[in-house]
Amino acid sequence: MSFTEFPSKLLENAVNEFASLPGVGRKTAFRLVMNLLRRDAEDVRRFGESIIKLHEDIHYCKICNNISDTEICNICSDEKRDRRIICVVENIQDVMAIENTRQFTGVYHVLGGIISPIDGIGPADLKIDSLEEKVRTGGIREIIFALSTTMEGDTTNYYLYKRISKFDVTITTLARGVAVGDELEYTDEITLGRAINNRNPYQQ
Amino acid sequence: MSFTEFPSKLLENAVNEFASLPGVGRKTAFRLVMNLLRRDAEDVRRFGESIIKLHEDIHYCKICNNISDTEICNICSDEKRDRRIICVVENIQDVMAIENTRQFTGVYHVLGGIISPIDGIGPADLKIDSLEEKVRTGGIREIIFALSTTMEGDTTNYYLYKRISKFDVTITTLARGVAVGDELEYTDEITLGRAINNRNPYQQ
Repeated sequence: MSFTEFPSKLLENAVNEFASLPGVGRKTAFRLVMNLLRRDAEDVRRFGESIIKLHEDIHYCKICNNISDTEICNICSDEKRDRRIICVVENIQDVMAIENTRQFTGVYHVLGGIISPIDGIGPADLKIDSLEEKVRTGGIREIIFALSTTMEGDTTNYYLYKRISKFDVTITTLARGVAVGDELEYTDEITLGRAINNRNPYQQ
Repeated sequence: MSFTEFPSKLLENAVNEFASLPGVGRKTAFRLVMNLLRRDAEDVRRFGESIIKLHEDIHYCKICNNISDTEICNICSDEKRDRRIICVVENIQDVMAIENTRQFTGVYHVLGGIISPIDGIGPADLKIDSLEEKVRTGGIREIIFALSTTMEGDTTNYYLYKRISKFDVTITTLARGVAVGDELEYTDEITLGRAINNRNPYQQ
């Protein structure tokens, strides 16, 4: 079924909006809209409002730029978190991924992206000034670079290092190595090489 | 990444709403919501409103039950359509599919479903009374059954036939046969059997 003509402009609008989402084609969009049409009015209103509210009422934490329902996010306002250790991440998905490990007790700094000349994203587009400011005003013991192991991630790490290393702060990155559950045979040589160089004392 | 904790209730709500759509898992829902978050506020408001308006402002045509922006749909209000020929379809997707062929100049009657005891849909859940009423009050020359060739479609056809055949009206169904472009070798035997029985004079 192609869509030369819609019986309703309202239907067409809704389909167009859904089709603007990544990975959603026009047929899928149509199917999703038809599903919404079959639902209760209250249900659909709640759906629409959840989208509108998302943009209107959501905050980005004034300290770490993480997404939040309040001016300061849950993590930054948690007294039990160690504010002297800042983990620098690309986006809020990364905050959620690290939080899910329950291994990190410091705070975060969300850059809001990664330096990527090909996408036209330079240092000025990211929250780097505020990170430098945090380190400059002191009290920070350690900055952890937790960016992707891609060329863009490495570039951003290098740029951040240049900006921050002049201050009295320890700079670390996530350990690179063979992933838990991975077979050595199928691990790429760069990862394996780093894993050998950064070998750890065996713990029983 | 699992989703034990969201940094924001608003974010979580939006993800839950998207994840309630058919074929959309939580990871996809999260990806879609993150895409919306990166957009302009105006863009996102339009998206949300298109969903709310869809339900609040949309009409179902008082004559044929097709979806419409007005009380009477474009097709039923078109003077050029032959109102004496009614094509009975399951849903509005089927109206759109037939409209796209540009071969049909009659009007439609949308049942709003198909008799399916396994899904708990009986004749009373469908717009069958209004169809019978149209035929009873006269002026209808032909009723075309254009339902799916499934057991449910056949059941519905049979039920409709029982209700309508007592009136003075021609009842037809869509031609069944080998689809255009199909290879005979791969056509199922029931379709092929019907195609042989309903063979047509060869036209040069």
